This record gives sequence, C-alpha cells and structure tokens, in this order.
Amino acid sequence: MIKDRIDKIISSTKGELIHKKLAFDGGFIKVFEECYKLPDGRLINKESISKNDGKDAAIIITRTTEDKYLIVFQNRINNIVSAEFPSGYIEPFEDVLTGALREVEEETGYVSNSAKIIDSMIPNIGTESSKIYIVYVDNAVKKSSQKLDSDEYINYDLFSFDELKYLIDNQIIQSSGNKLAFYHLKDIIHEEEKRSHK
Amino acid sequence: MIKDRIDKIISSTKGELIHKKLAFDGGFIKVFEECYKLPDGRLINKESISKNDGKDAAIIITRTTEDKYLIVFQNRINNIVSAEFPSGYIEPFEDVLTGALREVEEETGYVSNSAKIIDSMIPNIGTESSKIYIVYVDNAVKKSSQKLDSDEYINYDLFSFDELKYLIDNQIIQSSGNKLAFYHLKDIIHEEEKRSHK
Repeated sequence: MIKDRIDKIISSTKGELIHKKLAFDGGFIKVFEECYKLPDGRLINKESISKNDGKDAAIIITRTTEDKYLIVFQNRINNIVSAEFPSGYIEPFEDVLTGALREVEEETGYVSNSAKIIDSMIPNIGTESSKIYIVYVDNAVKKSSQKLDSDEYINYDLFSFDELKYLIDNQIIQSSGNKLAFYHLKDIIHEEEKRSHK
Repeated sequence: MIKDRIDKIISSTKGELIHKKLAFDGGFIKVFEECYKLPDGRLINKESISKNDGKDAAIIITRTTEDKYLIVFQNRINNIVSAEFPSGYIEPFEDVLTGALREVEEETGYVSNSAKIIDSMIPNIGTESSKIYIVYVDNAVKKSSQKLDSDEYINYDLFSFDELKYLIDNQIIQSSGNKLAFYHLKDIIHEEEKRSHK
C-alpha cells in the first residue's frame, strides 16, 4: 500500500532536533542556529527563521456579492508591487477564519459571514515551519473604509475571474501562495460551472 | 483596458527603497534593515531576508522514461519530513535549466536532456525577493548514485501521477512551491489526455 511505503520512507528520513539557539532578534525576524541529528547519526547545523513570533498567516480569496475578487497592491521588498489576495498573520487569540475575516476588513473594508479553509502550506520548508492557510471568503460586501497599520499603504481594486487569469498569465500575481490560491479558485469555478450545466 | 488600470494602480503604490543595512549575517541567512519611502511620503522600516546570497532556486518536476515522478524526502525544520520534487539553488555561473538538471542528478542520480521552465514565483514576497523557478524535466533515466553535500541526507522514490495526487490530498506534499508545481503538472497531464483523445 502507498501509505505503508510512504510511512517507511518518512520514518527512515526523520531526524532529531538536538538544540536550537537564538542567533538574531530583529523584532519581526528572528534567526535560530539549530543542530540536527540525521538518521545515520551525523550532526548537522542549520539556520532557521521565524517571522512575527512564528505566527501562522492566511491568504484570503475574497469574492464579493457582485462576483468580483478583492486584489490588494503594496510596495514589497525591492519595490516589487505585485497583485495579491488580502493576507495577514493570525493572532494567537483568534482562530484562522476570524483572523482571515479581520484582515480582509482591515485591508479593504469588506466583510462577510462565509469563510472556509481550503488548503494550507509551508512557504519556505527549508528554513521555516510556519503555515499559511488559504481561505475562501464568499459574499463579501463593503462595510467601511480601510483600517491600516501605521506602516501600511495598500491599494485595492475589484477584478473578475477572467481578469485574475490575466494577472496570473502576465506574472502580475507573483507570490507562490497567491498562485496556488488562484489554482484552487479555478477548481472552485470549474466545479460551479459543472454543476450549473447539469 | 485592464493593462492601463493595473499600471496605474502599481505606479500609485510604488515606493522607494531609501537605504538598506546588513543587520545579521549567519553565513546562509542574512537579515537586512531597510527603509522605504511610501507613495504618501512616509518613511517606514522593514526587515528583509536573503538566503544563500540571494540565489534563485528551482523546483524540478522530474518525469522518468517509465512515466514515474522522482520525489525526495529529507528532514526539514522542526523535523518535518514532507514529500518534495527535487530542488536546489541555481549557482551564479549556470543558467536555470543547467542548475535544475544538476540538482536532480545530485539528489537522485537521474539525468535528462529535456528541461523547460514552466513558471516562476516569489515564495515570501513580504520579506524576500528571490525567485523559485518551476522546471519540468521529462524522459529522465538513472545514470549514477546520489552525489549529496556533506550535510545532506535525502531519500527518494518513484511515484505515479495518481500517487502524487495521494501525496497532495493527504498533505504529504506541504510546501507551497511544490503544491503549485503539482497543479502545473496536472495541467500538463490534462493537455496530454486531451491530445490523445483527438
């Protein structure tokens, strides 16, 4: 069976984290020096990263009652401005969906009662273990203006699904998590179309 | 037109990197303190990361002449062992495809003459600007044994496309770039099936 085969490979590959030491604390980014024991007994050193105290984050596909999608734009590292679904960190006191809906409202002023987790992933598995959830929010409506943090500057606009395809095909959506979210959305739309043709 | 609309949003969001200072150098991971000027004139500080001197990397979907896919397993941060396509950093002296084929050979001993770039992405757009390319390698054959670095321990095995689906559906493939690569592969297989039914 495939499950047994995979379990065997995983257990024969599993190492052991022996110790971990804070090497740098910049406030937002921390770097750790870690020592691992490999399955063959060798000890190796690695550097790992935690951002924002290792909080998980969410990328939120947000579909409005007018069948448009909220896309935000902000100045990223090296002045890259790429199109992104709303996103943000989940705070320790809230669950993923509460945090996701809060982030959408802060970045765009839109609210909704319909949210579900459709995937999760680790963006940089070689250096971090924090997760990003992909959340699908439907029937969003504009309630208020943006409520941005003091160091944020975010523009947003509404795009149709075909316009999202344009953003993907022209590499205007650049982040791996956002691209993955788009593929999930494509599956959702495809399923809707199949149902409506029945 | 959508292009004009997007160009306008991007230029009204674009900031300016004012200065950048090395804050930590761990050998593999560097952290920078950066100051940006936002479009409204405010100055904000950010921390950014560069790994392995900011080299780009590749995730390589590797399909063998027997229509199987090479999947590698290694002990990652916090002892997470996830299934991954072969991957690695592109060295400054080589192009993406040369580096991709080199990494596949080092991690598995498989070689091929058929490689193409099918996508690229930024894994952590909030803190880094390095790219990961998704490369598709076909007709791979076993040539030699693994040639791993002294700190690597990698197991690999061959999986059918349906078995890859199992790895995705059961979250055994966990990295965002690997998940995105799987969706691209799904499109490739889908196109092949359409052509073979014509």
